[in-house]
Amino acid sequence: MAKYKLHCFGASGNAYKVALYLNCAGLDWEPAEVDFFNGQTRDAVWRADINAMGEAPVLEVGGRKFAQSGAILTWLAETTGRFSPSTADQRIEALRWMFFDNHKFTSYLATHRFLFSVAPPGTDPAVVAFFKARADAAYSIADKHLSAHPFVAGAQPTIADFSMAGYVFYPADETGIDIAKSYPGIDDWRGRIMALDGWKDPYDLMPGRRLPSQVRR
Amino acid sequence: MAKYKLHCFGASGNAYKVALYLNCAGLDWEPAEVDFFNGQTRDAVWRADINAMGEAPVLEVGGRKFAQSGAILTWLAETTGRFSPSTADQRIEALRWMFFDNHKFTSYLATHRFLFSVAPPGTDPAVVAFFKARADAAYSIADKHLSAHPFVAGAQPTIADFSMAGYVFYPADETGIDIAKSYPGIDDWRGRIMALDGWKDPYDLMPGRRLPSQVRR
Repeated sequence: MAKYKLHCFGASGNAYKVALYLNCAGLDWEPAEVDFFNGQTRDAVWRADINAMGEAPVLEVGGRKFAQSGAILTWLAETTGRFSPSTADQRIEALRWMFFDNHKFTSYLATHRFLFSVAPPGTDPAVVAFFKARADAAYSIADKHLSAHPFVAGAQPTIADFSMAGYVFYPADETGIDIAKSYPGIDDWRGRIMALDGWKDPYDLMPGRRLPSQVRR
Repeated sequence: MAKYKLHCFGASGNAYKVALYLNCAGLDWEPAEVDFFNGQTRDAVWRADINAMGEAPVLEVGGRKFAQSGAILTWLAETTGRFSPSTADQRIEALRWMFFDNHKFTSYLATHRFLFSVAPPGTDPAVVAFFKARADAAYSIADKHLSAHPFVAGAQPTIADFSMAGYVFYPADETGIDIAKSYPGIDDWRGRIMALDGWKDPYDLMPGRRLPSQVRR
């Protein structure tokens, strides 16, 4: 049994943040597939036994369970030292972007992707458009920052990069945002993340099926 | 001049998180009113000089500027010791809720409140309903947690309480969610926050006008 067990699934960018970290940090980990599409994260057993917040990912280590990708990444950086910010200032800078990521950069894009790609019955086009506009505003801010800095919190990659990398490797016909075309700063940074030892595509790194895309459907 | 200067305005719950912390911690602080309603946080000067993320609050101290309420609260707890989580485990627990707060609890309610109360031209009822449902889901999770714990991260108030307190004191006819009626666990916890030395209502603690409410308009 691996030291770290990550409850995750391929279509979850929030799970990918932690999976990619574990892999690039060279830690001994294994995925446990979450059956998200049949509602596993939202049922009573999951809420009682795994995560009351009704979400993935969850990291299990030494009999303990951790939820919320940002808190998990922080805990991993503190306990392993890998991709940890190196000064107090860099730690606050990383945290600033991790909050921005959770509030806007990941959140709006992830919701847009789900509505755009899965399009559950009753999805209103106005809601999809609202999230697209919010996601674009957040992407513009990150694009400007990443055009001026090699990594999110400075010269070296930190946990803030893994946080913001959550959804940027999913295909444009799945997310509805074409990074290569619209956000050159994010696109170049994405290349720097792909160059890290241990990088893999979300669907190669974690089990489970792909989301439908506008091309494939 | 006070030691801490907080760029804020009364209608901003994200600013209130920090203002309330500073007041309850008994720190030497003063507010600087942000002219949000005329677009100050989104204009080029603000983005260049104050906060590239185009948001309030911003904390100025000793010539430095800090953005993102979650990062500011963390920095303040670390540098002053006030309302700091007391163990490594409590620190991760506080952080877990602060991420949940930024992603969902504050975020969905704040957007709902803005659309419901200000109702900018072109606001689509489907978008308002979408955020109401998301906010209620997040409030239900917090309600269950706060029914079983005196404060967010345990027996004593920490920065996680100030984070989650951002929007819960605005009136129901402004937010569209009646906490007293629907969320008894959050309502009781709100009472424990109000009992802290230094507690004040957002509009009493910070300058600037009220949002319109469904009753007053």
